[in-house]
Order: sequence, then C-alpha cells, then structure tokens
Amino acid sequence: MQISKFMTPEIIFGNQSIGQVGESLRRLGASRVFLVSDPGVVQAGWVERIIHYLRQQHLDYHLWTNVTANPKDYEIHAGIAAYRAGECNAILGVGGGSAIDAAKAIALLATNEGSIVQYEGVDRIMHPLPPMVMVPTTAGSGSEVSQFSIIVDSERKVKMTIVSKSLIPDIAIIDPQTLMTKDRQLTANTGMDVLTHAIESYISLAATPLTEVHSLQAMRLIAEHLRPSVASQYNAAAKQAMAMASLQAGIAFSNAILGAVHAMSHQLGGFLDAPHGEVNAILLPHVLEYNYIAAPEKYRQIAECLGENTSGLSTHDASRLALKAVKDLANDLDVPQSLSAIGLHPEQIELLSSLALLDVCMTTNPRDMSVQDVAALFRQAL
Amino acid sequence: MQISKFMTPEIIFGNQSIGQVGESLRRLGASRVFLVSDPGVVQAGWVERIIHYLRQQHLDYHLWTNVTANPKDYEIHAGIAAYRAGECNAILGVGGGSAIDAAKAIALLATNEGSIVQYEGVDRIMHPLPPMVMVPTTAGSGSEVSQFSIIVDSERKVKMTIVSKSLIPDIAIIDPQTLMTKDRQLTANTGMDVLTHAIESYISLAATPLTEVHSLQAMRLIAEHLRPSVASQYNAAAKQAMAMASLQAGIAFSNAILGAVHAMSHQLGGFLDAPHGEVNAILLPHVLEYNYIAAPEKYRQIAECLGENTSGLSTHDASRLALKAVKDLANDLDVPQSLSAIGLHPEQIELLSSLALLDVCMTTNPRDMSVQDVAALFRQAL
Repeated sequence: MQISKFMTPEIIFGNQSIGQVGESLRRLGASRVFLVSDPGVVQAGWVERIIHYLRQQHLDYHLWTNVTANPKDYEIHAGIAAYRAGECNAILGVGGGSAIDAAKAIALLATNEGSIVQYEGVDRIMHPLPPMVMVPTTAGSGSEVSQFSIIVDSERKVKMTIVSKSLIPDIAIIDPQTLMTKDRQLTANTGMDVLTHAIESYISLAATPLTEVHSLQAMRLIAEHLRPSVASQYNAAAKQAMAMASLQAGIAFSNAILGAVHAMSHQLGGFLDAPHGEVNAILLPHVLEYNYIAAPEKYRQIAECLGENTSGLSTHDASRLALKAVKDLANDLDVPQSLSAIGLHPEQIELLSSLALLDVCMTTNPRDMSVQDVAALFRQAL
Repeated sequence: MQISKFMTPEIIFGNQSIGQVGESLRRLGASRVFLVSDPGVVQAGWVERIIHYLRQQHLDYHLWTNVTANPKDYEIHAGIAAYRAGECNAILGVGGGSAIDAAKAIALLATNEGSIVQYEGVDRIMHPLPPMVMVPTTAGSGSEVSQFSIIVDSERKVKMTIVSKSLIPDIAIIDPQTLMTKDRQLTANTGMDVLTHAIESYISLAATPLTEVHSLQAMRLIAEHLRPSVASQYNAAAKQAMAMASLQAGIAFSNAILGAVHAMSHQLGGFLDAPHGEVNAILLPHVLEYNYIAAPEKYRQIAECLGENTSGLSTHDASRLALKAVKDLANDLDVPQSLSAIGLHPEQIELLSSLALLDVCMTTNPRDMSVQDVAALFRQAL
C-alpha cells in the first residue's frame, strides 16, 4: 500500500451561496480583492452581484477581465502587474475553468518570483499564496477545488500543467444558480468534461478509496441529470445535480489526477486553442477503449453507475457496457465526434503525441502508452 | 435546498505514513511541539517512534500524557498550563479519541482565553488555533478529521460538545499499522463506534451528497472487514480497511453531524465515565428502530451496504433488514447489550434524558424526540 494524500478546500454549496463571497474573503483577512473574471460572466450579471457582496463587507476590489479560453502566460503576467499596481491582498476568481485557472496562476506569482512558465510540473511552488476564493459559473472544470492550474506557454504553444497543494483555493463557493446562464453547447461540453474527470480519476493509478467514492457518485449524477440539463436551460434540479457532479469529480481528480484524455487534450488546447470540454468529449471513447485491459472490474462499476444493467453478465461483457454508455451519452447530446472538425491536421499528430507523453496527466494513466499509441488514438479521433 | 458546507484536514493515509509527522509539523511552522498522548500509547511504543521523527526534523517537544478516557476539563486546564510553561507553538495528538480531543481542546485554549467550559456549543471560538497534527491509534473516533472536541465538565458531570471549523486539525496522519496494538474488545467497540458514525451521519438532517458517499463507503468496509479485524490481531488487510472506514465515517460526521445515539451516549460518558464505543454499540439498535420512519429509503441503502440482499423487496421489507444487519454484527462481535452492565440505574434515566435533549448531536437526529422518548430508549437498553 502506498501512502496517499487527500485535500479539499472549504466548500460552500447551494443556491444563494454566492451571497457568502464577501464574508468568506473577510474571514480570510482580505481587504483589497483582485477579482478575476471574463467578459461573458460580466455580461451575465454575476460580477455585478459579486461586487455588491464585496461592498457589503466594505472590501475594496480591482476587477480584471483580460482572460481568454485556455489562458495564456502573457495574460497571467499582465494580471500580476495589475494585482501589484492595485495593491491587492487576496484573489477572487469568478467564471469557468479559464478564469479560475488564471486567478490561481496570478495568486502563485503574487508570492513567488519570476515567470509562470518556471512553475510547470509538480510541486515547484515555494511560498504560500494569498487568500483565494473561487466561484465557478460552469459545472465542469473542477478548478475551484483542485490543485491544478493549466496555462498556455505561448512561445512553445503548449498547455502547461502546474500542480501543487498550494493551488487549492481556501474556499470554493458553488451556487447552482450561476449555471442557468450557460447555453446548450457549453452545457453539453462541460458535462462531458465532468464525465471525463470522473472516469479518468476513477481508473487513475493514483485513485484511492477516498477519491473513488466521489468519482462514482459523479458518474451516477451525470447519468441521471446531464441529458435533462442540456435539454432545458431552466431545469434547476438538473443544473443543481450537475453542479454537484462537477464538484465531486473535481474533488476526485484533484487528488487522484487524470489520464491520457487530458494529457492529449491539453496539447490540442495549447496548439489549436480548441475548447477543452469538446476535445475531451471527442477523445474519451477512444481512450476508454484503449485503457480497457488495465481495469475491467472498474469498467463494470462505471457501466453500473452510468445506468447499464450488468446483472448476470461476465466481467468482460459488463465492462464493455461502459463504452456503450459513454458513446450513447455523447450521441444523445450531439457533441462533435471528430478532431478534424476542430482543426486538427494529420501532419500535426506526431508533434502533439510526443508532447502528450510529457504531460503530468499521462503519469497516472492506467495503461502504458508509447508515442505510436498516442498517435494512433489521435488518428482514430480525426 | 439549504446551503451546505464541507471541509476536511489534509489527510495522509497509509502504512509508514507516521514517518511524515516531523516534516508535517515543520511545514506548518512548528518549532516546539506539545505532544499529547496517553500512557497506553506510550507503552505500545508509538510515542517513542514519533519522538524519533520529531528529532529527525530538529523539533523540540514537550510530552504530556495526563489524559484519561472521556477527558476532563481540569485535565485540559493542566494541559494548557504545561503548553505555556513549555513555550510550545504547535500541537501533536497521538492516541485514541480521548487524546486527540484533549489535544484539540488544549490548542483551543492556547489562543482563546478562559476555561474550556465557556466554549461548549457551536462556533464559540474567536481566534485561530496553533498548528495541529493528529495521529489516531484507534480506528474509531474520527476526531483526527472532525470539527468536534468532547470534554467532560467535571462539575456538572456532563460531556460538552464543542463544535467549530477551527477544531479541524491541519493535518491528519492515519497509519493502519498503529491499529495492530489494539485488543479484541477495543477493536470491537471502536468498530461499532465507526458504524454508529457512518449510520448517524447518513440519516442526519444535515447529510449532503458529499457526506453520504463517505458514510455509505464506511458501511461497506465495516460489513466486509470488522469481523475479520476483531478475529485476528494480525490481520493487516482488515485493520487497514477499518482505518479507512473510520476515516470515511469521520469525514462524513464532521460535516453532517450525528444523532440521538451520540446525544445519549455523551451523557453516559459524562455521568458514568462509560466507554464511548461500548455505549454506542448498546444504544445503536434501539435508536435505529426508533428513527426508522424518518428515512425508510435510506435504511434500504444501509441494508444493502451492510451486505443484505434486498433485491425484489419492498422499501419497508428491505429497510427492516438494516436493523437485522446491525444486530447480527453486534451479536457476532460479543459487544455488550445492556446499559445496566455498565452501571446505569433506572433512577438516573430522567436526568440523563433531559440532558441528552440539549446535546448538539440531537439537533440533526432525523426523528423528533421528547424527553419521554429518550427515557423510553434508555429503558429499553437497560
């Protein structure tokens, strides 16, 4: 038995929990808050509401919204300059995975010197970060509870994975109401991203009994609630369940890490600026098929949690139903099925495959992979 | 939907994880450690090993072992005087629930003035506590991950429940090897205590999807591993599984709180100095029977996790199997079945029943209780 570690932020979950953002920051000793968000979230009205709660607690703030999808190193460097100029002493991230990852990377540079690219990899952070509160507005990234921040190195066109306990926020506030403003496509893509988190963390070599319960519960919630959540923008019960699924998958993957789907999709995100959830959804069935021999018994569990009837079936037959269930879900949600549709060209595959092998997430994939194996999977998904 | 909160310490779990105690304290900024334990744990050799790890990290320490089962207020007051005299700046608890609860109460008084009795109840702690690392040596109390400390008010002869997020230790180190030194009776009693934590947290009014997965997994582990763990002192796989069960139940009840079993057993602990695990084991079947109508569907889940075959059964019939499973387990383990055997007299029941109604744990019990209801349950268990 290896020694395993498990850690989460303080989690506040529920409708109206967003109202606790001011007192949460106050409690952590904040006085001037660097508020990281993006223009879409501002337009949806959430930032205005957040600012109202900050004012109620007499907190100053500096709003910074220069974040794009797949946040870039230069955006982080501009962000930390603004943080310093604003003399802030705490960080609040409000938005999807990009805004929260950017907020965490800026927090990193608030107390650790140099460029963000120096911190790629595991445990490179030397000094404690300023207080961080995160409010996700998509049920997907799990970044609000994770020890990850994914930032693009714009020179190398590579998504860097930065991993450290220091990146776990102090407080995560998850208010399912904030999910009502997502469109159908984003709901489907981020939902498939949650499914990928749940499955990859469950079959990860670093999974533990503490993470497995959260992975499996996330799958059950997705099986029951993702379709209805995509079907109607106003299905509050489904949105709430998907917020819980995202949270549980986030707790699981923060501690168990992920696998080849993420190692591969990070490269497409860095190279093509492709949307993360969509790429994961395309890659998941192919990687699942490849990984199958590493964990047939776990695939049976996945099939059961995704609603398949496995009673009376052999492990082999039951576990194959996991693949069927994932494909059925992707079909029902009309998620894209081809990487060429998002701009991947065959001649790029060799480079992206070698980079994927170096990604932190590849180290916990349950089946060994050569560069040829990765390339074959990219080609299957073309 | 109510707003729910969830929080755990950083958890380090596995054989040999005890070797990380020095660097864990060092990482939290400790230089002089107040080491709280009890004579039994010293005799088993764990304290000597711990001190070795502290010395490796050049940490000074002050050993304090004046803790009894059901720790008393005056022991805490003597402890904080020794902490101050020793000029310590961090707390390390090594032992069962009593040693860890005492360590947490001493940490409380290190930064908060007055007597420990002033802090009874919820959220009375004003100032942050010194760094705390906890190393449990019984799989039972869950105190190493919980926001509870239970201390006896010796004047009133009442077990006070102190509840605050501040009481959650910074780091919990769970090394299943430390459980090999428990005797059969202690293994059975603490195992039934874990079962009580799992069940009461699951049917608690404050249970959430984040806590329920841990409650249910604890039950599955208990159903499979508690009997073998009691059967052999040297069954390492069973001890390891019970350590994980205790941890998962601890995470669950720290966040979902408990119920009437604990509200009642706290009174017997305070009044008769009765062993906590044993009292819980006696009370559990009676309280479960009483609480049944509050959550039949949850009782079905309990039955399934405890290994009963519920397929094809109505909710009523399936849920009744939860009661059978708990009684079967208590029978198999030879745990005592009567409160009179541990010294309860009928004339004490009225007083203890009124006190139980005031206990924090009663507020989350899923079925309402009058003083007559509590008294009737005490009488049934006599």
